[in-house]
Amino acid sequence: MSKLTTRADNYSEWYNQIVEKADLAEHSAVRGCMVIKPHGFAIWENMQSALDKMFKATGHQNAYFPIFIPKSFFSKEAKHVEGFAKECAVVTHYRLRTTEDGKGVEVDPNAKLEEELIVRPTSEAIIWNSFKGWIQSYRDLPLLINQWANVVRWEMRTRLFLRTAEFLWQEGHTAHATKDEAVIEAEKMLDVYAEFAENYMAMPVIKGVKTPGERFAGALETYCIEALMQDGKALQSGTSHFLGQNFAKAFDVQFTDKTGKLDYVWATSWGVSTRLMGALIMTHSDDAGMVIPPKLAPTQVAIVPIYRQLEQLETISEVALKLKKELEEKGLRVTYDDDDNRKPGWKFAEYEMKGVPVRIAIGPRDLENGTCEIARRDLLSKEIVPFDETVEKVASLMDEIQNNLFEKALKFREEHTYYLDNWADFETNIKDQKGFVYAHWDGTEETEEKIKQLTKATIRCIPLEGKEEEGKCILTGKPSKGRVVFAKAY
Amino acid sequence: MSKLTTRADNYSEWYNQIVEKADLAEHSAVRGCMVIKPHGFAIWENMQSALDKMFKATGHQNAYFPIFIPKSFFSKEAKHVEGFAKECAVVTHYRLRTTEDGKGVEVDPNAKLEEELIVRPTSEAIIWNSFKGWIQSYRDLPLLINQWANVVRWEMRTRLFLRTAEFLWQEGHTAHATKDEAVIEAEKMLDVYAEFAENYMAMPVIKGVKTPGERFAGALETYCIEALMQDGKALQSGTSHFLGQNFAKAFDVQFTDKTGKLDYVWATSWGVSTRLMGALIMTHSDDAGMVIPPKLAPTQVAIVPIYRQLEQLETISEVALKLKKELEEKGLRVTYDDDDNRKPGWKFAEYEMKGVPVRIAIGPRDLENGTCEIARRDLLSKEIVPFDETVEKVASLMDEIQNNLFEKALKFREEHTYYLDNWADFETNIKDQKGFVYAHWDGTEETEEKIKQLTKATIRCIPLEGKEEEGKCILTGKPSKGRVVFAKAY
Repeated sequence: MSKLTTRADNYSEWYNQIVEKADLAEHSAVRGCMVIKPHGFAIWENMQSALDKMFKATGHQNAYFPIFIPKSFFSKEAKHVEGFAKECAVVTHYRLRTTEDGKGVEVDPNAKLEEELIVRPTSEAIIWNSFKGWIQSYRDLPLLINQWANVVRWEMRTRLFLRTAEFLWQEGHTAHATKDEAVIEAEKMLDVYAEFAENYMAMPVIKGVKTPGERFAGALETYCIEALMQDGKALQSGTSHFLGQNFAKAFDVQFTDKTGKLDYVWATSWGVSTRLMGALIMTHSDDAGMVIPPKLAPTQVAIVPIYRQLEQLETISEVALKLKKELEEKGLRVTYDDDDNRKPGWKFAEYEMKGVPVRIAIGPRDLENGTCEIARRDLLSKEIVPFDETVEKVASLMDEIQNNLFEKALKFREEHTYYLDNWADFETNIKDQKGFVYAHWDGTEETEEKIKQLTKATIRCIPLEGKEEEGKCILTGKPSKGRVVFAKAY
Repeated sequence: MSKLTTRADNYSEWYNQIVEKADLAEHSAVRGCMVIKPHGFAIWENMQSALDKMFKATGHQNAYFPIFIPKSFFSKEAKHVEGFAKECAVVTHYRLRTTEDGKGVEVDPNAKLEEELIVRPTSEAIIWNSFKGWIQSYRDLPLLINQWANVVRWEMRTRLFLRTAEFLWQEGHTAHATKDEAVIEAEKMLDVYAEFAENYMAMPVIKGVKTPGERFAGALETYCIEALMQDGKALQSGTSHFLGQNFAKAFDVQFTDKTGKLDYVWATSWGVSTRLMGALIMTHSDDAGMVIPPKLAPTQVAIVPIYRQLEQLETISEVALKLKKELEEKGLRVTYDDDDNRKPGWKFAEYEMKGVPVRIAIGPRDLENGTCEIARRDLLSKEIVPFDETVEKVASLMDEIQNNLFEKALKFREEHTYYLDNWADFETNIKDQKGFVYAHWDGTEETEEKIKQLTKATIRCIPLEGKEEEGKCILTGKPSKGRVVFAKAY
């Protein structure tokens, strides 16, 4: 396997190569649409599974809504249509026919839809149209629904996982009797996302709210988690929206409260997508390939036999399979790779590239000595361990690696976080793409826009855990009550 | 909750009402597309989870391919395009714009795609286009891929779960070095489907192969499982196709074998869909509502407190929550429904309609007597059980109900299976929709077609476990070597 371009040489190329060589995803024949390959999909499945458990533990139920949304639905919530519904896939016909020469197919002009259908870019419109039938009284509330689905947004410049025309995601859509309840829900789901990012992805995140200019189309408040990538750019990793009564009004969803009074319900929506795969890659991976936190690794331990003759393999296999079984009894996901078509060196390179957290090699000399070699992917280190200590050692390595990756990423973020009060420093810092910049902002959309034009930095969020602090806007010098987080972003 | 129309009165209406009242699915604003509601989706998730484990246990990996397929891809496999690609959703544009009056949106005529995209009706074409890049040598084989996805086939007459424009399914796509291996794979996956149908859905199935006329577009052999519904109609519940080298040739997928020789790979594909939800409903449900086999029930046990005053509830809750915990420790999925907004009678009706296998009621008198009331959904029976026997009793009921449902369905099928040798009997039997008819067939497509025209019966399959038997075709009297299975079908 050929070596990767290094991050220092060409970060963007390094990313593309990892996605390809670690067998995560590839471009398809359809512009902007990706194929998620088995290894990439297995990581996404582990993400899904962990998130789904967290959603259910917080009282949500899954459901499924149509992939198509009638065009007219997009006009119902005025701000929503402004922000969405422009770059999207439009279905206009429902039939093909054989061409006259009999060799191909063409669109049948007689099969034109009366109203065009839009492939969902997000599902608020179609879901709220259903919610109208599901909600009559306070007894039907709160309604806590989640959907795992594919969505399509016609992106002109695409990058695997980070920005693709079709992507996979989950979208939560909830309805509540009171404003407070809806706000609490939006904040709760932000916490779920942050917990998932930090505990499973080992990726530290800043929790915050978006400025009005960066809010989701139709939201009164957009909460977000922001992570720092190794190139100093920010990546928005999840959002949770408090939608007020906008969609309830647009789709006329009212409920009778306990006193018999009719009112519109309050709403939230929240989502994370396969973009998290991009975040995962760029948080931990190194110049040797992908690095996956153990909790999300499809294979946590790969055991590779080292042998010359097939009869050696037999003896090694006996030991290796016993080890595999014992590790599996500890709940670990283990592969024993006795594929005779590939050499050990090839396998080592493969598992390194794919980010398997721990690799165990067992050769004839190990059998004599009662040892094996344990390699850690995160440190690229190796260690000889007595056989009877291997299971305990490997099991404890899972936590150790998980924690190490988080601490390393946290340290990286801390080292790349700046508190600046001077415009020249700010400009240089952003230009050099050094990381998160905490700076004062006067709170106006004009200033936000101007800073963006001048430096390409956006306000990633107003941090929830930010402390009050009197200061002066980094650009205008006008008074400010707290710092916001600036960075260039994906 | 109002009562259902009975099966005897109007079977079709009974089905529609169950789907609606048991909260399984509903029609959406988009013609032919359904909304799968939380209870229905939770059952589907249990199906998915069991199937996914079985696929992985047989060596398959999940991946994800684009929802869109370029139109030209459908022309590549000639038979495939004949059978598919006609009634489907066609994307022609990629942008909307605001209408001149600023109030709505319309398709932007400047954003016309150079080549139209088809929303996948099945993914052979786009997947084989990727496989070309994945397969070079025998080392890359077998390639065993599965995808969980939504697909769209523009159906004019739709019925919830049974026939919808959009549905959810899984599609396995595999590539092999030899013909034998591919045939073994296609048969293995048929066995997986049959095992799932019988062990999880408690639905007996006949395994067989389709006649040439009923094969999947592009297949050399189509294997299927067929189940009998309560109205005497058959429902095809899963298919597995041996595709020969058709797709490999259409998409030029060749591999180098160990001797260095280049050859096309051999393929299979196989799938089951949300149609299985329809099969599940029609196999077990009764005039009181849905009946779900315990292995697939989202809630296996519902505990309902019976109380007048809230202080009674407190004492009951203590006992009920302890019971819930003990049942959960046995691995059961349990709901304790202490919702004070609903009366016990309402809850009983609700759980009956939704098909929860076991319902436990606990009232003040039960507390005095140290008992509770256990109700079985499958038999609609009730029993008073001492408290200290409840956990064991309920745990063993799970197997008992699962087995009872299978045995009941098997008995129904046996009572509705006929071996006929006379055309008049055949005609009457099919007309009265009595069930499966095993009859001789001369093996020609003409006869098959004629029988279909005369009676609306189709050959569901040539049973794999059928025995050789000399006979005469039920229609033509020509010689036959074994019986095939006829029925009207969904």
